[in-house]
This record gives sequence, C-alpha cells and structure tokens, in this order.
Amino acid sequence: MSTLSFDPARTSSAPGLAMGFERWRADTRALVLDELTEFLRRVRVAELRATGVHDVLAQYALGGKCLRSTFMYLGWLCAAEPDPAALRASASLELLHAFALLQDDVMDAAVLRRGSAAAHLRLAAPHRGGPATPPRFGESAAILLGDMCLVWAEQMLRDSGVGADELARLWPRYDAMRVELAMGQLADLANDTRERPTLDTVLDIARAKSGNYTVRRPLELGAALAGATGTTLKALGHYGTRIGEAFQLRDDLLGIFGAASITGKPQDSDLGQHKATSVVVAALDMAEAHARRELSELLDRPELDAAAIERCRILIAASGAAERIEAMIADRVTDALLALRTGALGREPRHALEQMALLCTARQL
Amino acid sequence: MSTLSFDPARTSSAPGLAMGFERWRADTRALVLDELTEFLRRVRVAELRATGVHDVLAQYALGGKCLRSTFMYLGWLCAAEPDPAALRASASLELLHAFALLQDDVMDAAVLRRGSAAAHLRLAAPHRGGPATPPRFGESAAILLGDMCLVWAEQMLRDSGVGADELARLWPRYDAMRVELAMGQLADLANDTRERPTLDTVLDIARAKSGNYTVRRPLELGAALAGATGTTLKALGHYGTRIGEAFQLRDDLLGIFGAASITGKPQDSDLGQHKATSVVVAALDMAEAHARRELSELLDRPELDAAAIERCRILIAASGAAERIEAMIADRVTDALLALRTGALGREPRHALEQMALLCTARQL
Repeated sequence: MSTLSFDPARTSSAPGLAMGFERWRADTRALVLDELTEFLRRVRVAELRATGVHDVLAQYALGGKCLRSTFMYLGWLCAAEPDPAALRASASLELLHAFALLQDDVMDAAVLRRGSAAAHLRLAAPHRGGPATPPRFGESAAILLGDMCLVWAEQMLRDSGVGADELARLWPRYDAMRVELAMGQLADLANDTRERPTLDTVLDIARAKSGNYTVRRPLELGAALAGATGTTLKALGHYGTRIGEAFQLRDDLLGIFGAASITGKPQDSDLGQHKATSVVVAALDMAEAHARRELSELLDRPELDAAAIERCRILIAASGAAERIEAMIADRVTDALLALRTGALGREPRHALEQMALLCTARQL
Repeated sequence: MSTLSFDPARTSSAPGLAMGFERWRADTRALVLDELTEFLRRVRVAELRATGVHDVLAQYALGGKCLRSTFMYLGWLCAAEPDPAALRASASLELLHAFALLQDDVMDAAVLRRGSAAAHLRLAAPHRGGPATPPRFGESAAILLGDMCLVWAEQMLRDSGVGADELARLWPRYDAMRVELAMGQLADLANDTRERPTLDTVLDIARAKSGNYTVRRPLELGAALAGATGTTLKALGHYGTRIGEAFQLRDDLLGIFGAASITGKPQDSDLGQHKATSVVVAALDMAEAHARRELSELLDRPELDAAAIERCRILIAASGAAERIEAMIADRVTDALLALRTGALGREPRHALEQMALLCTARQL
C-alpha cells in the first residue's frame, strides 16, 4: 500500500501574476497538464488493460483549455502568494471535469468531443464479445473511466500538499459542487424543447449544470483554500455566477450557430437532441406568429433531419434571439466586472479576472 | 454553506461483541441503517426533484444485508473498543455499495434488484419528454444517482467523527478499493463464456469485482482505522481474500441454480448474459465430450431462450461442476478459519469472524 503523496524533491513551480496575464495563463496551463500527467503516471493508468484508455484520458483530461483549474488557482492568488501545492490542488479539477464529460457524452449520445470520436465510441471499437454488445461495452467503459476520474480527482486534491486545515475548509464546498453538478445534469436531461420551459428555468439549469461549476465554484474553492475574507468571497461569487451564465449563453449560441471546427462537436447536436437552450427558448418567445408556429412544429418532430435543422437555424436567426442572447452576455460581463471593484482585490488578480471574463465569453472562443 | 458533521448531542451507541454474535449483528445492522437514514436526511435527498429517487435509495442503500459495513466495524472491533464514530464510518460503505449496484444494474441491463424493479426502470417510468428516450433517461438518472452515492459515501466517512490521523491512514486504502472496484467491473464486462476464459482468470476477476470489496477491504479498513498490528492485518487480509472468494463462488452457484425468491434476481440472468462465471467454466472443463459440445454450442448462441437456459442448467448439473464449486467453497472457508488463529485476535472477534464466514458462504444465503 503506497500512498500517492507527491515527491517533495520534484521540482515544481507556481506562476505568479507579476509575469503578465498572457504568460501567466500559458504557464499555468502547462504546469496543470504537467501535474496531471505526473499524477496519472503515479496511479498507473498505463497499466489499465482496457485498450484506448490512455488516449481517451489524453483527450478528456489533458485536451481542454483548463478553465476550471485556472479559475481555482486564480481564486487562490486573490488571497495568497503563488504556491505549487495550490496549483496541484487546482489541477485536480481537470480530472473532475473529465469525469463529467465522459459520463455526459454517454448520456447525450455525443459523437465528437474536442474534434475526436467520443470516449464511448473509442472504447467500444476494440471490444470483441463479452456479455454486452460493443456499443454497450463502450458506454459502460466510459462510465467506469468517469468513476475512476471522480475518485482520482479527489485523491489528487487530498494528496496535493495543501495543509490539512486548509483542506478541511474545502471539503464542504467540494462535496456541494460535485452533487450540484450531478443534479444539474439530471435536470438538463429532462429539459426538452417540446416542454416549452421558460428562459428562467433554462438559465437555472444551465447555472447548476455548467456555469457554477466552470467559474464560480472553482474560484471560491481557490479563494477559500487561501483563507480569503468574506468580502473577497462575496465579490468572486457574484463575478463567478455572472461569468458562468455568460459562458453558458455563449455555449448555447455556439450550439446552434458555431462551426464544428470551433466547438469540436457536430453542429446539429443541440437542435437534433431537442435540447431546450436559452437561444431556442428566446427564439420561441420572440419570433413572429407564423415563424413561431413553423419553428414549434419543427421542434416538436420526433426526429429532425438536416433540412429541418437548417430551417430551424434560419428561423432562430430571423427571430432576433441571437442578438438578445448577445445582449444578455454583455450585461452579465459588465455586471461581473463591476462586482470585482467591490472585492478589495489587488490590481493583478483583478486584471487577470477581467481577462478571463473576456476569454470565457468572447464571440470566437 | 453548512458542514455536515454530526450533531454530538445526538445519542448514538455502538454495539460490542460481548452481547453475543446474533444480537451484535442485528444491532449493528439496525444502527447502520439508522446512521444512513440520518445522513440522507442531512444531505436533503428528499428535496431531489426527480421522482422515485427516495424509493430507489431505500432499495439500494437501505435494503441489503449490510455485509460490508458489518465487516468494516468488525475489523475495528478486532483492535479497538466499540465506538459510534467507527460504526458511522462503517455505515458509509453501504452508500459506496449503492453506487456500485446502481451503475452495475445499468451496465448489466438488470431487471430486478432485491426483488423489485431495477433503479433505471423505476426512474424511467415517470419521465415524459426530454432529449433522451424514457429508457435512456432512466439509465442516466441511475448513473447520476450512483455518482451522488459515491460522493456521499466519502462525505459520510470524512464527517463520521473519526479522528483526522485515523482517517489519514484510511484514504490510500479507500481510494485503492474504489479504483479496484471500477476496474473489476470493467474486466467483468469483457468476461464472456464465448471467450472460454480459464477458471483462474474468472476467479481473478471475481476477486477484484466483488470478493475483495465485500470482505477483505472492509475488514482491513476497519482494522487500519483502529490501528491494528501488522499481524492482525495480515490474518484479516488472508481471511478476507478467502471468504470473499467463497462468497463469490456461492453467488455464482446461485446465479445458475438459485431461486429468484432467494437472489432477488431473475434466474436466467447469468446464462442469458453469457457471463463466464466459475460454475460455467468448471462445467465446460469437467463435462463429458458430447455434453461439453452441446453446452458449448448452447453458450455460443447469440440469444438463449428459456429452453436453452434450462438445458444448460441440466448439462452443468450433470457435469459435477456444482459439487466442485461446493468443495472449493469449503476449502476456502477452512483456510480462512485457520488464518484467524494466526492473528492474535481476541476470542469474541474471532468467534464473530467465524460466524460471518459461515453466513456469507452458507448454501441458503
């Protein structure tokens, strides 16, 4: 029984904001990926006998923009000096995110993730025989790999080198975030265009499912770990909620109008799956009577072919929904930036939070 | 953000072995269920909006024999006095088990669990609309409820009131057990009668998937928590491995010959799913040439109807495989009981371990 606590002799560093935002962000991401790679080596992922697991982890745990780990480490820097243990703790969020993506992709029957085949498809391919059919085996393997990532995330956080008292402050927030994430996904699965949910309902679900867990909770985790004051936590909470919402609204726009080359997903998935996103709900609300009737009829079909999806896209564009959602994004970004002024933050963390806000919500992300 | 640590004013007790095994076991199970009920109240499961969740948790987390929690608490009693915090920590294993059962039932497309409809079927029923079809929604809801149970299990353990130093000894073992469990399930999904695995392979998978996690790891967790000596841990490890194997072999026999009234599952599931269990592999090994050919041909069919399953059962019985597996069970029980003599255990814990060994492996359990 060997513990997995990190080798103190291993050189590690932790970038501070004094180097400038762009370099800080690039260095942070590089170190996050380095820590994750080292952790996966220690838990001997390479020895997992199932074919393809290594590539799938590279895609799901190491292939993203590292937004959540960056926000957590930035939360730390709002109240403490650069620290390798805090960076390592932050990196663990990428494993938590890999858990969520692996299982969401099964539930949504996603085809692509980050431009490559989704995990359950990759894990099904090499399988011959077994009590399950190959697709079913692939789905089960993706769920189980997700479970392992959930366990590893927590293990990496616990073994990060952060002090016991600091960690004790973190666990209630960490547990609440994980349960909120699962509950948000459950609500999202029941969220159907054919049920005509209101925009408020859709925004509530989006906040629980992805907004909070992408921006607000990571920031709060990092700041709580650093022992930030109530004033700072409150400002970060406000900023995080607003930027999380704006991030999700941007994602909803990309889900209808984004090219697959940007999203890494097929362009028709949200509409084809009857997902009630903010854009669709706004379009149903705003379209002229005849256009609304046509859009409703299309969205109520059990299956939408390519022509139907293209027609939906035209009707949504004509409704003015995209402009309304863009305005909602801009409102939220403004609100978030104003909130930063109330947080008694240093100049550098505030500047970095401003940059991250734009990065997460900009039109081309 | 309220923490979930337990109210010290709440009266709690912890049964000791001096009261006699039968009463100790009944009292332990009752208190385990009481602690779980209290925990689920605290995490506000009742507020989960998805219909049926409460009933499913009663079935999956509170409806079993509490073997794993009983073994963990018994491991504790091998090296320490009765203690309510240790009992509470032990009870958390039932939530971990609920996680495994919820997700396994989806992967195995199980129909029944403990005599009632499996969770994914119960959770699918009330669902109307949504991007997923009702069966798919039910499966996703069961997976997500499983994820929540995995998080809650760890939260309940962390907040059990056990000391920080004791918990620190536990985490590496706890993490290893959880990853072993997921890896064992993955191996089991690829374990097909049509691939003709050897008995050794099948026993290896069974050990990882259920044996270790039912007996050995819970015992070791409890004993490690209590600060047991190396001698005691070694004896318990040996006993746990053997009783875990025997438990799985008994489960394999019940999977072919057990009545649904005992197993709470349909009688045809192992054969119908082409599961390569010890009994099937032994039968293929031992049957006469013509019977082996007939059994092979039946097992290789893509679908087995009721008549084919009944014919398999007759051929397996005629092969003498059941007697061989019974002998293997008896060997393992003997070996386990001998191991207890080497552990420097007190009279009462040893007696309780002997009783648990018989209870887990007896013909009618």
